[in-house]
Amino acid sequence: MINLARLPEVSQLIDLALSEDLGRGDVTSASVLDGDGGPVSAALVARAELVVFGLEVARAVLERVDPRIGWTPLLGDGAVAPAGSIIARLDGPAVPILAAERTALNFLQRLSGVATLSRQYAQAVAGTSTRVVDTRKTTPGWRALEKAAVRAGGCHNHRADLGSGILIKDNHVAACGGVGVAVARARERAPHSLRIQVEVDSLEQLAQAIAARADLVLLDNMSVAEVEQAARTAHAAGVLVEVSGGVTLERVPAYARAGADYISVGALTHSARAVDIALDFA
Amino acid sequence: MINLARLPEVSQLIDLALSEDLGRGDVTSASVLDGDGGPVSAALVARAELVVFGLEVARAVLERVDPRIGWTPLLGDGAVAPAGSIIARLDGPAVPILAAERTALNFLQRLSGVATLSRQYAQAVAGTSTRVVDTRKTTPGWRALEKAAVRAGGCHNHRADLGSGILIKDNHVAACGGVGVAVARARERAPHSLRIQVEVDSLEQLAQAIAARADLVLLDNMSVAEVEQAARTAHAAGVLVEVSGGVTLERVPAYARAGADYISVGALTHSARAVDIALDFA
Amino acid sequence: MINLARLPEVSQLIDLALSEDLGRGDVTSASVLDGDGGPVSAALVARAELVVFGLEVARAVLERVDPRIGWTPLLGDGAVAPAGSIIARLDGPAVPILAAERTALNFLQRLSGVATLSRQYAQAVAGTSTRVVDTRKTTPGWRALEKAAVRAGGCHNHRADLGSGILIKDNHVAACGGVGVAVARARERAPHSLRIQVEVDSLEQLAQAIAARADLVLLDNMSVAEVEQAARTAHAAGVLVEVSGGVTLERVPAYARAGADYISVGALTHSARAVDIALDFA
Amino acid sequence: MINLARLPEVSQLIDLALSEDLGRGDVTSASVLDGDGGPVSAALVARAELVVFGLEVARAVLERVDPRIGWTPLLGDGAVAPAGSIIARLDGPAVPILAAERTALNFLQRLSGVATLSRQYAQAVAGTSTRVVDTRKTTPGWRALEKAAVRAGGCHNHRADLGSGILIKDNHVAACGGVGVAVARARERAPHSLRIQVEVDSLEQLAQAIAARADLVLLDNMSVAEVEQAARTAHAAGVLVEVSGGVTLERVPAYARAGADYISVGALTHSARAVDIALDFA
Amino acid sequence: MINLARLPEVSQLIDLALSEDLGRGDVTSASVLDGDGGPVSAALVARAELVVFGLEVARAVLERVDPRIGWTPLLGDGAVAPAGSIIARLDGPAVPILAAERTALNFLQRLSGVATLSRQYAQAVAGTSTRVVDTRKTTPGWRALEKAAVRAGGCHNHRADLGSGILIKDNHVAACGGVGVAVARARERAPHSLRIQVEVDSLEQLAQAIAARADLVLLDNMSVAEVEQAARTAHAAGVLVEVSGGVTLERVPAYARAGADYISVGALTHSARAVDIALDFA
Amino acid sequence: MINLARLPEVSQLIDLALSEDLGRGDVTSASVLDGDGGPVSAALVARAELVVFGLEVARAVLERVDPRIGWTPLLGDGAVAPAGSIIARLDGPAVPILAAERTALNFLQRLSGVATLSRQYAQAVAGTSTRVVDTRKTTPGWRALEKAAVRAGGCHNHRADLGSGILIKDNHVAACGGVGVAVARARERAPHSLRIQVEVDSLEQLAQAIAARADLVLLDNMSVAEVEQAARTAHAAGVLVEVSGGVTLERVPAYARAGADYISVGALTHSARAVDIALDFA
Repeated sequence: MINLARLPEVSQLIDLALSEDLGRGDVTSASVLDGDGGPVSAALVARAELVVFGLEVARAVLERVDPRIGWTPLLGDGAVAPAGSIIARLDGPAVPILAAERTALNFLQRLSGVATLSRQYAQAVAGTSTRVVDTRKTTPGWRALEKAAVRAGGCHNHRADLGSGILIKDNHVAACGGVGVAVARARERAPHSLRIQVEVDSLEQLAQAIAARADLVLLDNMSVAEVEQAARTAHAAGVLVEVSGGVTLERVPAYARAGADYISVGALTHSARAVDIALDFA
Repeated sequence: MINLARLPEVSQLIDLALSEDLGRGDVTSASVLDGDGGPVSAALVARAELVVFGLEVARAVLERVDPRIGWTPLLGDGAVAPAGSIIARLDGPAVPILAAERTALNFLQRLSGVATLSRQYAQAVAGTSTRVVDTRKTTPGWRALEKAAVRAGGCHNHRADLGSGILIKDNHVAACGGVGVAVARARERAPHSLRIQVEVDSLEQLAQAIAARADLVLLDNMSVAEVEQAARTAHAAGVLVEVSGGVTLERVPAYARAGADYISVGALTHSARAVDIALDFA
Repeated sequence: MINLARLPEVSQLIDLALSEDLGRGDVTSASVLDGDGGPVSAALVARAELVVFGLEVARAVLERVDPRIGWTPLLGDGAVAPAGSIIARLDGPAVPILAAERTALNFLQRLSGVATLSRQYAQAVAGTSTRVVDTRKTTPGWRALEKAAVRAGGCHNHRADLGSGILIKDNHVAACGGVGVAVARARERAPHSLRIQVEVDSLEQLAQAIAARADLVLLDNMSVAEVEQAARTAHAAGVLVEVSGGVTLERVPAYARAGADYISVGALTHSARAVDIALDFA
Repeated sequence: MINLARLPEVSQLIDLALSEDLGRGDVTSASVLDGDGGPVSAALVARAELVVFGLEVARAVLERVDPRIGWTPLLGDGAVAPAGSIIARLDGPAVPILAAERTALNFLQRLSGVATLSRQYAQAVAGTSTRVVDTRKTTPGWRALEKAAVRAGGCHNHRADLGSGILIKDNHVAACGGVGVAVARARERAPHSLRIQVEVDSLEQLAQAIAARADLVLLDNMSVAEVEQAARTAHAAGVLVEVSGGVTLERVPAYARAGADYISVGALTHSARAVDIALDFA
Repeated sequence: MINLARLPEVSQLIDLALSEDLGRGDVTSASVLDGDGGPVSAALVARAELVVFGLEVARAVLERVDPRIGWTPLLGDGAVAPAGSIIARLDGPAVPILAAERTALNFLQRLSGVATLSRQYAQAVAGTSTRVVDTRKTTPGWRALEKAAVRAGGCHNHRADLGSGILIKDNHVAACGGVGVAVARARERAPHSLRIQVEVDSLEQLAQAIAARADLVLLDNMSVAEVEQAARTAHAAGVLVEVSGGVTLERVPAYARAGADYISVGALTHSARAVDIALDFA
Repeated sequence: MINLARLPEVSQLIDLALSEDLGRGDVTSASVLDGDGGPVSAALVARAELVVFGLEVARAVLERVDPRIGWTPLLGDGAVAPAGSIIARLDGPAVPILAAERTALNFLQRLSGVATLSRQYAQAVAGTSTRVVDTRKTTPGWRALEKAAVRAGGCHNHRADLGSGILIKDNHVAACGGVGVAVARARERAPHSLRIQVEVDSLEQLAQAIAARADLVLLDNMSVAEVEQAARTAHAAGVLVEVSGGVTLERVPAYARAGADYISVGALTHSARAVDIALDFA
């Protein structure tokens, strides 16, 4: 894996985050502590069971504030941390650790929250050939980080951005005058590294997509029964099926059984809650 | 109000967001539509009741992709949008609208989610003199935006960053050797524009804080009964009281009744869920 | 089409370009002209036949230096400009036009150079079903612009970046222990929006790629005869074929006739020469 | 020499380049390799004779992706690398090396291409007192790098930007009403660290430039015979002569013999072709 | 203390500074020296007595140009350097040291100038309980650095920015319709971490401020006698007093004796002169 | 003149400045005013006689905060504003004007301060052929702005940066082994657009500089008498003379009479004081 914290865009987000919290200094520590506050030891502790993700970003935050802060991870990204377990140990001067604490935790708690929720969805389809995948409904500025957290939790990624996947939506179909025309144009003009996926709202459109040799179809807001029928037809033609639209954790297994190859879940990223991680001084 | 979308740091976040979704172009539209796709009309529609926030950012996203996109807001930031209501209308070429859609929605859905949750908390203390306030547990890169969303929902802001409030935590107290010393140092050295707040874990510490003339105390993870006793003591000495630590929507009224002047709730920002807003073509 | 000049990364490149040429001012104009130099009219003139590309970037350069500079394009991106033809007219104060001239031309000449060269390659496969595609051998910082110029010249794009296409190279195959394993892993883990392409060096590897159900194969540095045989085998199995490796304009038709579905040509971007465009004052 | 890769503007260009290729991760390596892919050794190999330039930038690219990548240069910037020679060795984990490879090579191939072409021009005037110099027709964003590559190839630099040289062009002359007035104004107002150069189109203008005590004249698009006559006149007055305008490698020696002190060649930077350098795994 | 040179905004300012001086290289050293110029030793020497501030920034400038430059500080930030004393020693290659010299000195001379002037003001109130504080009249881009220099010289900071202090000025009062209303609104809406300060122009307004329970008043451009009377009244009500408006070093003691708790002096930052520091080669 | 506020580096400085003052919002206006505060009229007023400079930057600051703010300049850059005169009028909503006020004034006051001081120096050499020039001792981040302010005050610019002038200092001379060698190397390697200047400490070195055909010499820290003798010698050889080193306003005329062609004064930029400009509401 590439260290995401070294990517320019992630580095810029870290800069924004440090600037917004620390750009005017830490007046409390500057007022009540002397110098760098002297050496302390601290631990990042999981307050509840969670899937860890974001260690490299947390470390980069600490290092940017002060490279003297020592960092010893006890768990890796993707590991399940039991409640009360120590994720990593820190050693260094108190003042910069206190200055970086909140920003490092804010990254780690949110990203581990995405990984932890993703794990629940991954477990809901365990044993099937269905994949739960994310969407582009990510927190603006956080795309690469959240998509990596989704993988750490055991789910898969859908296209990374508007440039890395052809997904013909209903508005495109309407503008082109039909599923067949839209798919044909995509086949003519799109980069050949990309599969061609088209949203279909009915069995008629599905038939058109198959006839136009789409690689994948997207079934949006269909019932389990509808998905079952559509998947049977699509699979017979060698076309893969993705289901989307308000799929909750409870309904995931039914869609998987109905034959969905992929189930996309926006909530993995747009509605994950931060998990509870504390920085405890020894 | 200042237009937040014009602040350099918000502008950078918008750039990051557009870059991560659109930096490689929109291969779908480029493949299936011709030129700019021709003129369309669209509406931002609330799929459930919500408090609107983030209109200026959404508009800035659209304008940055293409200044020809027309924007007519029907509701303002802070307004309650009933389910099914139109928040704003858009007019312009289809291709740039489709290109900007997801990024604009991602901002609007998250920020309206924070405002909507904040409104629930604000209503929970309605009729009391207690204020629900946010924390620094915001999404990195989003501090100014989320804090404004909190206000739009009717809650208040705690300090904006480490430079705009003195909050002496337990670690500071331990390092200084006591509440009294810590508060005295802050009084000696901190900018005079800032109140001095100190976390107290016991009635003994509360007494020390009062003796040292702290302006505010923070009661972390105390029961309602403990808060009630502490608040009575503090108020008698002219010291204000803030309660924090896992305060849920259900428990907020009890803490308010117990005399908390301020209740800080990290969940307002770190665990708000995106609300459902769609961009529907006319 | 999205206006590329509005993308944050292109905007940054324009800033870099203006900064490096104009960051210390234009001492010549400041020395010999007074004030803004008074109004002038000028024209961008093609000194030789060329395919125009980069108008939006050129215009953005002019506008950034001075929004008062008027811009009237007479040709569009992708148009063939005969030698001596006027591409666009400019009106405005002399000093800012002279200050922006070189930077605007440097963008326009290079991008039109890429488009012009691409047109030659596109014409070399005209009438066949083969597509000439670009590579990732683009000028660092110019990826999106040069890929758009390639399209403007009539060729097609390969993957935009390392995140928008699966291309398993010889080093990957070696590390995995075989074509079959590598393709299987990609099928298991890669985003489902992406086709799976694998480089094959021999007919044995081709057979393995087919067996593992690769979507595409890459034939690197093969002779026309070898391509012909490989393409026949691959097509029989429904697998598409890309040819790469030092393919010159002269050899393109032979590879096309040999059955290559795609021919990738690094020279489109890494070795295009600037075309001659002048800014003539009226 | 300053390490150019440490300049803020070069660092930004490297960021743009890494972002555009790696910003969505490397899905191929992530799919087919495990972890960091394990340790590998690799070599940068010259596929044809070339002048090396850009080692510091290539190294900076590798280091930014992963500081664990070891770097051992065998040749220095400006060295002539015979075909087949190893320029530098790399050691480190396979995944980050594969992720950084293309960007590092794209920098190195283009810059070495400029240096290699410059060496041809430098050799064409070897033994004379004439210098071949570059122009401002550089790749936007690459000014400092390409100008350094020109020097590495044995040519010289003209002014770095609009702020580091007075070059009065025909449009300035026209606006001022004559060569004499323009030179006089420049002498009055320009920073005294800069020489004053003026473009002259005729012997009449040359006489005016001499009378106005210009330091240098620019003869644009003149024949060899015309240059010879102009140079004789200019030199007699202690004025230096620069020749420009479509000077090819073949015509350079004749212009040098005709007495040109400087011959400026835009092609050094605007039309250099990338040279062939490969990253071969051991 | 946090190392300010590591803050993103300070890092950006250092980038701007290096870019503007070194972005086109150092043509003198490149012309007259070979390679990196060989190893040299140098010292930063105070040419007159001064208070040192800015060591971390100066070091960061040197390190950014070349990490091989060794740095041995002999004095710390805030120390008084006698005339002729050595502040720090440098060791490293001559060319990068010469390239970074001016930028490092420009930072150090200005910041030490602010610290030195601040020390004079701090000494003028020595032995009293009055604090001299800075204002927001800082050099744009330098806020955090100059405010730290003020502290290093022994003065105190007023609010860091528009977000970290409530200061109701005359225009606000006018717009609200009175001091009382303005203070009441601030008390209702402002973050509870901030004190509430209001400018008063008369004893009537002072009475209103006291009645509205302002925490602090600002007396702008009042005579010493007026301040004395106002301070007496304010103090009796437990309200603190700040004096501002053209307070010179000579008049500071009189205002302190008159009872000002705080005297704000814009000149600390907007009119400090650079102190003389040289980089001498051994 | 180019509008400096449109240069990328100046735009970045404006962003830094707005971010540091306004990045957390304006809590005072947000607390005591409603909405945008309603329309107001205001004027920028000179409190003392001064030379105006920085209007475009001030305007850019206002426009960035809110493009609705109207701007009517009554004086131009470089004009002398009598005490009490109005420089420009503003119209627009109160809240954004108050938010941008301090930043706009901080730019305008400092830049007008540089211009005002420069005018004093320019007047000190009025009627002579001597030019007072600035140095590279500018405020980091402000180079282009301060150099333009110097010109607005009637002085001239020395080299813009390390890339736009050859100035061989004593350390270079020492490293090269003599003035003659150093000048010869510069003549051999430097861009031909630059004059060659060398620092000389004695008449012996001056003779060497003349023999090596330096264009200019720099006499550092010489007495008036020494300058007189050196200038006579240099001028006889057609070499120009610059004087530097602690030249005060009082001593400038004597150096001018002694024959200095250029007198460089660091104080123009490193020690100019802000002039008093107020934003008064109508």
